[in-house]
Amino acid sequence: MNPFKEYFIKGQQNKDEGHLFSDSWLQEWRKSINKSESYSKQAAAWNIPLILLFKPLPDFFKSKNSVGIYLDLRSGTCTELRYAVSDDIETNCVVLSASEKSWLQLLQSGKNPTLFLLNGKLKLEKGSKTLLVSNAGAAKALLDAAPSNSGDQIPNVSEQESNIGNNRPTSEPHERFSTVTKGLDFESFPMKLFQKAKIYGVWNPSDISFEKDRSDWKNMSADEQTIIMHLSSLFLAGEEAVTLDLLPLIRVIAKEGRIEEEIYITSFLWEEAKHTEFFARFVMEVIKTQPDADRFHGPFYKKLFYEKLPQALSALDHDRSPAVQLRASATYNMIVEGTLAETGYEAYYKMLDDHDLMPGLREGVLKLKQDESRHIAYGLWLINRILEENEDLHPSFENLLDELLTDATNIIHEIFDRYDTVPFGLEEEWFLDYAIKQFQHRMEKLKLNN
Amino acid sequence: MNPFKEYFIKGQQNKDEGHLFSDSWLQEWRKSINKSESYSKQAAAWNIPLILLFKPLPDFFKSKNSVGIYLDLRSGTCTELRYAVSDDIETNCVVLSASEKSWLQLLQSGKNPTLFLLNGKLKLEKGSKTLLVSNAGAAKALLDAAPSNSGDQIPNVSEQESNIGNNRPTSEPHERFSTVTKGLDFESFPMKLFQKAKIYGVWNPSDISFEKDRSDWKNMSADEQTIIMHLSSLFLAGEEAVTLDLLPLIRVIAKEGRIEEEIYITSFLWEEAKHTEFFARFVMEVIKTQPDADRFHGPFYKKLFYEKLPQALSALDHDRSPAVQLRASATYNMIVEGTLAETGYEAYYKMLDDHDLMPGLREGVLKLKQDESRHIAYGLWLINRILEENEDLHPSFENLLDELLTDATNIIHEIFDRYDTVPFGLEEEWFLDYAIKQFQHRMEKLKLNN
Repeated sequence: MNPFKEYFIKGQQNKDEGHLFSDSWLQEWRKSINKSESYSKQAAAWNIPLILLFKPLPDFFKSKNSVGIYLDLRSGTCTELRYAVSDDIETNCVVLSASEKSWLQLLQSGKNPTLFLLNGKLKLEKGSKTLLVSNAGAAKALLDAAPSNSGDQIPNVSEQESNIGNNRPTSEPHERFSTVTKGLDFESFPMKLFQKAKIYGVWNPSDISFEKDRSDWKNMSADEQTIIMHLSSLFLAGEEAVTLDLLPLIRVIAKEGRIEEEIYITSFLWEEAKHTEFFARFVMEVIKTQPDADRFHGPFYKKLFYEKLPQALSALDHDRSPAVQLRASATYNMIVEGTLAETGYEAYYKMLDDHDLMPGLREGVLKLKQDESRHIAYGLWLINRILEENEDLHPSFENLLDELLTDATNIIHEIFDRYDTVPFGLEEEWFLDYAIKQFQHRMEKLKLNN
Repeated sequence: MNPFKEYFIKGQQNKDEGHLFSDSWLQEWRKSINKSESYSKQAAAWNIPLILLFKPLPDFFKSKNSVGIYLDLRSGTCTELRYAVSDDIETNCVVLSASEKSWLQLLQSGKNPTLFLLNGKLKLEKGSKTLLVSNAGAAKALLDAAPSNSGDQIPNVSEQESNIGNNRPTSEPHERFSTVTKGLDFESFPMKLFQKAKIYGVWNPSDISFEKDRSDWKNMSADEQTIIMHLSSLFLAGEEAVTLDLLPLIRVIAKEGRIEEEIYITSFLWEEAKHTEFFARFVMEVIKTQPDADRFHGPFYKKLFYEKLPQALSALDHDRSPAVQLRASATYNMIVEGTLAETGYEAYYKMLDDHDLMPGLREGVLKLKQDESRHIAYGLWLINRILEENEDLHPSFENLLDELLTDATNIIHEIFDRYDTVPFGLEEEWFLDYAIKQFQHRMEKLKLNN
C-alpha cells in the first residue's frame, strides 16, 4: 500500500481532532496562511475564493457532506477556510480538482501545483489557467502553509528536490552581447568566410550515390582494396578527430568575445561533422566492414591523431595563451588539414581519376577539399592574428612548424613502408614532395618576420 | 648592426685558428659529426657529398679561394670536411646556398634547415628537395654538430624555442574512434534529426530581402517601432546567448563518446549562429540603430539570459553529472527555446501577419521556428535519456521545471509591464497562456514517472 493511502486511511480511522483534514487542522491551516509573509506578498492581488475538490470523493469528506475544502482568499489573507459543499461551486470562485493522492502530495510533500496542473494531475474546473499559473508563487505558499501531519509516514521530499544541478558557484555570466551593443562586422574576414560557407558548405553527404563505387570495389584486386581501405581508415579517424578536437578552440574564441569568428567556426565544425558522416557512409556502404585501426593506424599516425592533435587542442581548456593557441591551430589547420588531408585527397584522385573509379568517393572528396580550403584560410588568418600580436613567439613557432612537418612526413613514410609495390602506381617521393609543397604554400602566407 | 653580422666581422678580423670557419673549426666540426649518434643513425642512408655555398661570397671565403664548405658524407659519417672550390659543384653532390647570415643562423642559432628551405632562405641549387626534407633529422644533426662560437654574441634561441604551447601535462588523448570501430548509427534519433537538418536547416539568412521591411519600418508609429525593436532586442541577445552557451553541452556530449549526438549538435550550433546573423542583419539593415540593452532587457530577462542560462551550461565545464546536464538542457531547450522563443515568434506573427508587414522578418522567423523545433526535439530526447537512467532525479527535476517556468512567465509579465496599451493589440493574458501551452506540450513528452 502506498504511504499516502496508508496515511489517509489512518487519518480516517483516527477521528481525533488535529489529524489531516479535521476541523482543527483546517483552522490551523488558515492561521498558518495568515502568518505566511510569502503568501501575503505574492497573493496581494488575489481576491477570489478557491475550492479544492476531491475526485473521486473519499468517504471522509462524504461523512462531512462535503466535496472538499473552501478557502476564501482576500488580498493576501485567508478570511475563511472550511469544508466545501457542492453549492459553493456555483458561486464566483476558482475550482481545482485532484485525487486524494495528488492533494496529499501537494499539501504534504511539497509537490508543485503548476506542474500538477500542466501534467493533468490537478484540473482547473473553473477559472483562468493563466491567472493561476501567474500566481504560481502564491499557490505554492498557500499549500506550504498547510500543517504537516503529525506522523512520519509521508516522506517529505522537498529537501532533496532543491537546487538540482545547481551546486556550483555561479560563474561565467554574460556581461554584454556583441550583437546588441555593436552588431556584427560583416566586412571581417571570418564573416566573409561564413558567407562562402553558407553557399558552398551546404552539400549533403547523403545525396552522394555510392552505387558505382560498390561495383568498382568488387572489381578491385585485393591489394587495391587494401590501399583504398587504408587511406579511408586514415580519413575516417582523421575526420572524427577534427570534429571532436575543434570544440576547445571554438570555446576559446567564444570566451574571447570574438563573435564573428565563432559564427564562422560553427560552419567549420558542421562541415567536419558532415565529412565524418561521409567517410562513415563510404566505409559502411561500400567497403562494408569497419577498418582495423591497429592494422592501418601506424605509430606516427597514432602519435599525431590520437595524441598530439587532441592534446594540442584540449590544452586550451586550461590555458588559452597565444602560444597554446598557436600550437593548436598549427597542428590542426596547417598540418592535419593543410598538409596531410590535402595530400590524402590527391592520393584518392591519383588512384581513381584516371580509371574513372568510385565517382561517389571522388565527388565527396572534391567537396571536402573545398570546405577544407576555407578552414585552412581561417586557420592561417588566426595564426597571423596571433603572430602579429606576439612577435616574441615567432622563433619558437618556426620550430613548432618544423616539428609538425616532420610528424607529417613521418606519416607519409609510414604509409608507404607497408607496401613493397604500392597499388595504382603511387610513389612515395611524389607524395612527400606534394605534402611539402602544400606545407610551403601555407608557410608563405604566414607573417613571420625573419 | 645585427649580432650575426657583428660576430661574422669579428670572426673575419680575428684570424686566430679556432674561430668560426677557420681550418681547425672545420676539423672540429668533422670530428663532432662523427661523434654524433643522432647523425650516424639518421644519416645511415646518405651517401652523397654536400656543399654549403655562401651567396654573396664573403671576403673570408674569397681569401681562401673558396665558395663555401664541402662535406663528404658516407653512411652516417663525414669522411672529409674542407673549404669547397667551384669545381666541386660539378661533381655528384647536393648543393645548398644561403647568405652568411642564414648560414650563421643555421650553424650557430639552432634555426631549422627545413623551414629555411621552405621559406627560401636556404636554396637547393642541386639535388632533390624531397630527399633533403626526408632527411631533415640528419641535416639538423649535422648542423647541430657544428662547434659553437667561443663568444656569446649570438643568442642561442634553441632553449626558448622548444615546446611552444606544450607546457601542459599530456591529457585527453583519443582511445579509439567510434567511426573506425563501429561506424555510425544512422538509425539513431540524433542522426535522423541530422538528416533533417541537412535538408531544412541550410537556409541562408543573407538571402532574405529586407527591402519591404525597411519601408514598413518607416511607416510605423513610434510605439509600433518600439515594440518591434523591443522584441528584436530580446531575440538578438537570446540568439547570441544560445550560440555561445551551447558550446559546453556539445563538449560534454563529445567527451561522453556520443558521436551521433555530437554530429547532430554541430548542425544545431550552426543554425543558432545563422539565427544570430539573421537578427543582427535585421537590426542593422532595417532598424539601423543598435537597441539599448539597458532599456529593453529587464531584470527578469537579464537574470535568465545573462546569468542562469550561461551558468547552467558553463557548469558542465566542471561537472558533467546527470543533474547538471538536466538543468542545462531544461534551461536551454525547454524554457529558452521551447517556451520563450516559441512565444516570441508568435508575437511577431500577431503583430505583422494580418497587415502583411515586414515579410523578410516573418520569412526568417518561420525558418527559425523550423530549426528550433529540431533543437527542442533533441533537447527532450536528451532529457528523457537522462531521466530514464536517473529516476532519483525526477522529483527535483519537476521542481526545476517549475522554477524555470516561473522565470519564463516573469519575463512575459515584465515585457507587457512596460506598456499601458500594447501596440498591435497584443494582450498579456494571451501570451501567458500561449507560453504555458508550449511548456505543457514539452512536459507531456517527458517520461516523468509520477
